[in-house]
Amino acid sequence: MMAFPEPLLRLIQNLARLPGLGEKSATRLALYLLRRPEEEVCELAESLREMRKRVRLCERCFNFSAERLCEICRDPERDPQIICIVEDPAALSSIETSGVFRGLYHVLHGLLSPRDGIGPRELRLHDLFERLKREDIKEVLLALSPTVAGEATASYLAEVLRDFPVRITRLACGVPMGMDIRYADKLTLKRALEGRRPL
Amino acid sequence: MMAFPEPLLRLIQNLARLPGLGEKSATRLALYLLRRPEEEVCELAESLREMRKRVRLCERCFNFSAERLCEICRDPERDPQIICIVEDPAALSSIETSGVFRGLYHVLHGLLSPRDGIGPRELRLHDLFERLKREDIKEVLLALSPTVAGEATASYLAEVLRDFPVRITRLACGVPMGMDIRYADKLTLKRALEGRRPL
Repeated sequence: MMAFPEPLLRLIQNLARLPGLGEKSATRLALYLLRRPEEEVCELAESLREMRKRVRLCERCFNFSAERLCEICRDPERDPQIICIVEDPAALSSIETSGVFRGLYHVLHGLLSPRDGIGPRELRLHDLFERLKREDIKEVLLALSPTVAGEATASYLAEVLRDFPVRITRLACGVPMGMDIRYADKLTLKRALEGRRPL
Repeated sequence: MMAFPEPLLRLIQNLARLPGLGEKSATRLALYLLRRPEEEVCELAESLREMRKRVRLCERCFNFSAERLCEICRDPERDPQIICIVEDPAALSSIETSGVFRGLYHVLHGLLSPRDGIGPRELRLHDLFERLKREDIKEVLLALSPTVAGEATASYLAEVLRDFPVRITRLACGVPMGMDIRYADKLTLKRALEGRRPL
């Protein structure tokens, strides 16, 4: 244990718990923060607390949101007749930044992966079916990564969505196979969105 | 810019400013924290704020401290007649954890490095001379790293401390415990030989 005053040790312990930080990097980071202006450190502390207290899931699409409904669901300019199914909010964010898609979203918060014990019940699928019953949705666009789990989830969805009177589409294969959609560049995503084709 | 709610973007921006974290790792860390219990994130925030508000420099030895004087300076069991000069609080912490030294410290907060514009005025030297005048100090132990900057600082201190009626000592330099002597560098071996002691 280091011979530092208690408030410094407490911070180092808390930082060392974060993923990718060991005790050495936590110590380095804490000593760096000790040299920074007090306002800067308090701003970091405040943004941590605010983020955790205010960010929750949108009640409609399960995107991250600071309100009951997320900014996208509240936007009257968006087309509510087409919803884009994504794995998680980071994937949603990637698609948003392409600036092409003007519909709404539905965030699954995972992909089917029987090996990891993630079946249909672990995803926001029941909520998707409820939306399809309640809302006037004409098209469901599957924007899942073309990985094993993404493909499996897309096939499953194509199957179960057949019972609903909606057009089912998926992103065109502009996204290279095996690439995580969260790291795809804007242009690739734009091409994939424009070239979406019926399943 | 990512399509995340404002409190999440604000945290990501603040995290991305930390050394060693880019926007990608900051995003990963923020999303990790979003999944953690609120108490855990608030504890991290609180420890950041507390550390920055409460930890300052000891008015006597310039070690980190949560009080006007650090724990070591306040400890009546410590010998105030011998002070150990260290580069920074992390070096002090290393020496403390050895559990051998029972005197007090003086933290320079740097080493002389003319190339980086760090001269005697940039270190806590004036305060050291004041202590030597005011306190009853019999021995000054130079515990600086045997690096170029450490050696230069030690030589400079040995020179200027000659005017004070104190014994000046330095850490023994030699082969570190557990090191295979075949891999020790020449300079280390030279010092170890020069400093040989009877068994």
